[in-house]
Amino acid sequence: MNKTLEFELHPTLERDTTHIVDLPLCRVLLMEDARFPWLILVPRQHGLREFHDVTGQDAMQLHNEIALTSQVLLDLTGAYKINVAALGNMVPQLHVHVIARNQDDEAWPGPVWQTGPARPYTDKVRAGRAALLQEAIAEATAQ
Amino acid sequence: MNKTLEFELHPTLERDTTHIVDLPLCRVLLMEDARFPWLILVPRQHGLREFHDVTGQDAMQLHNEIALTSQVLLDLTGAYKINVAALGNMVPQLHVHVIARNQDDEAWPGPVWQTGPARPYTDKVRAGRAALLQEAIAEATAQ
Repeated sequence: MNKTLEFELHPTLERDTTHIVDLPLCRVLLMEDARFPWLILVPRQHGLREFHDVTGQDAMQLHNEIALTSQVLLDLTGAYKINVAALGNMVPQLHVHVIARNQDDEAWPGPVWQTGPARPYTDKVRAGRAALLQEAIAEATAQ
Repeated sequence: MNKTLEFELHPTLERDTTHIVDLPLCRVLLMEDARFPWLILVPRQHGLREFHDVTGQDAMQLHNEIALTSQVLLDLTGAYKINVAALGNMVPQLHVHVIARNQDDEAWPGPVWQTGPARPYTDKVRAGRAALLQEAIAEATAQ
């Protein structure tokens, strides 16, 4: 079975993010919240709900893609900390948050959820961030 | 180098949790908050800070121990959802939250952090939960 055939992004993730790139396992999305450098990784397989639904080699690949995108965010932003989380209380499709945090950001030291409404990007800034991320991820995967 | 030699649990984690068991990679702790069935996994290696500081076979082992403890929580509690998160904004030592969530719990559908003060266990309930978890994890690891 080609597991990627049936993959479809949840409409909430579709609405709230910008597509950056597809890695071997995950679709990488930029969260529409200019307050935080915030990526979301969605394994491109149908029917995943929990972090532990990813198994075997896919689990290793998921870890590697979390590591790669974490390092890209650190390099691009000089962030103090990366937050990694698979919550999924609101959107059932398995998705992993990878968020660059700084000690002067609007939620620090709390988590980013429930800290008021997201601040949308302007079209120009969104496009610039997406291009930067695409370039940095392409460089990181080429290494 | 025996990486476990230098492992020391952060004093905040020591204070806020009960030791359940040591798995091959992680120390498993029960969070002192009776509102949520909440485990914390701490890889027993010195100097880890980020999720992606765990690499190679240890990364696979970390995933497997997250999966094992998630399944144990699901089996014991009949939870609706597992939340997995490595945040570390307050406690720098890498630790992974594995939390059983239900649609009628006190934080649903939000995350469990910043939802008011933790509710301590009574000594009797804490001891009972710890024993149940030890037994269930021992059974799961024996399979």
